[in-house]
Amino acid sequence: MPKISEQRRTERREQILAGARRCFAEHGYEGATVVRLEKVIGLSRGAIFNYFPSKEELFIELAVRDNARMSDVWVNEGLEAVVREVMELDPAWLSVYLELFRRVRTDPDFQTRIETRQKEIAPANRARIEDAQRSGEFRDDLEARQIGVFVNLVLNGLALHRASGEELPPVELVLGLLGDAIGGREALSEQARKAPNGQTRKRPAPLGVSAERGNA
Amino acid sequence: MPKISEQRRTERREQILAGARRCFAEHGYEGATVVRLEKVIGLSRGAIFNYFPSKEELFIELAVRDNARMSDVWVNEGLEAVVREVMELDPAWLSVYLELFRRVRTDPDFQTRIETRQKEIAPANRARIEDAQRSGEFRDDLEARQIGVFVNLVLNGLALHRASGEELPPVELVLGLLGDAIGGREALSEQARKAPNGQTRKRPAPLGVSAERGNA
Repeated sequence: MPKISEQRRTERREQILAGARRCFAEHGYEGATVVRLEKVIGLSRGAIFNYFPSKEELFIELAVRDNARMSDVWVNEGLEAVVREVMELDPAWLSVYLELFRRVRTDPDFQTRIETRQKEIAPANRARIEDAQRSGEFRDDLEARQIGVFVNLVLNGLALHRASGEELPPVELVLGLLGDAIGGREALSEQARKAPNGQTRKRPAPLGVSAERGNA
Repeated sequence: MPKISEQRRTERREQILAGARRCFAEHGYEGATVVRLEKVIGLSRGAIFNYFPSKEELFIELAVRDNARMSDVWVNEGLEAVVREVMELDPAWLSVYLELFRRVRTDPDFQTRIETRQKEIAPANRARIEDAQRSGEFRDDLEARQIGVFVNLVLNGLALHRASGEELPPVELVLGLLGDAIGGREALSEQARKAPNGQTRKRPAPLGVSAERGNA
């Protein structure tokens, strides 16, 4: 019965990944020992490493899935959705990424394995930006990759802030200023429609943010 | 001779801090054992912990100094200088910060001790933004703290990118888009002077960045 066996394998994989994510988030990457992984996942090390040959592979698979999910949100729901998504990520899980920055930088093999998997989603992200440029949502006087770079800086800044556990700035402030940096003709005309108050400033105030509302 | 003794104490402190910074950067925070600290600093644990009661205190002092230096650059030299400074930080040292994010979030005492020291420099940073708003360098339709929040997001995004060891985006792209988000009337008129080409876009292209130049 190859079909059932295949389904069971898939369920096992998901069980392992879900448990590994919880274990990494709770104990950190280094702190997630094999004993702890066995306990949280509920399987022996033999069973776990039958599916994923190493702790590294477990982490890489989880990271790739995160990226794919973010890419889906970005492609299907747009900038505001992805900004909100980042602002709601689990700080404990984000700390696992931060813990691994040294490793990524100093272990070329680890770096290559992550990058190879991440590159799979890049074309869809790029195409989303180009669509948004054509529709006027994003400015069209820059290359899509230049816009992508800046959006990534802001998203990474938000993720870092989120990982610290400190209160985040209002999403409207972030979206407003990001929109002023990368918004296109449609974003600008929407602004003009919302705030037709003849201010001297040559570009409109960002979405829903003004000195009157205050308090970042 | 209390004066010489005082000077020697200062030199010792500096020797300890410089060595601790190298040791943390090389081995990571957890990896910087007392034995390694002794070796890199060139003093016994007794001597080291006579000046700094714990490894934590060593890190906090180094972090506070980093922040004070960044604040000096920001206050005295402005946005471009501080962006360039962040883009040149040592990736190995940045990884030490990232490693400690979990700790900061989960150890309220550690968090409080860092925050108390960091707060000392906040007023100077805020005043710098307010000056820049008055002079027209930054927009004046937002509160200074709102501008500060956004600048911090971008700087943190850059620091994270830098820590990964990957190539950074061109500084002109970052400054240009950041300028579009937070620049004031002076920034806008400078743009207009540089690019008086009657484009339909309602705000000018960012500093030195255009689709022609390309390649982020």
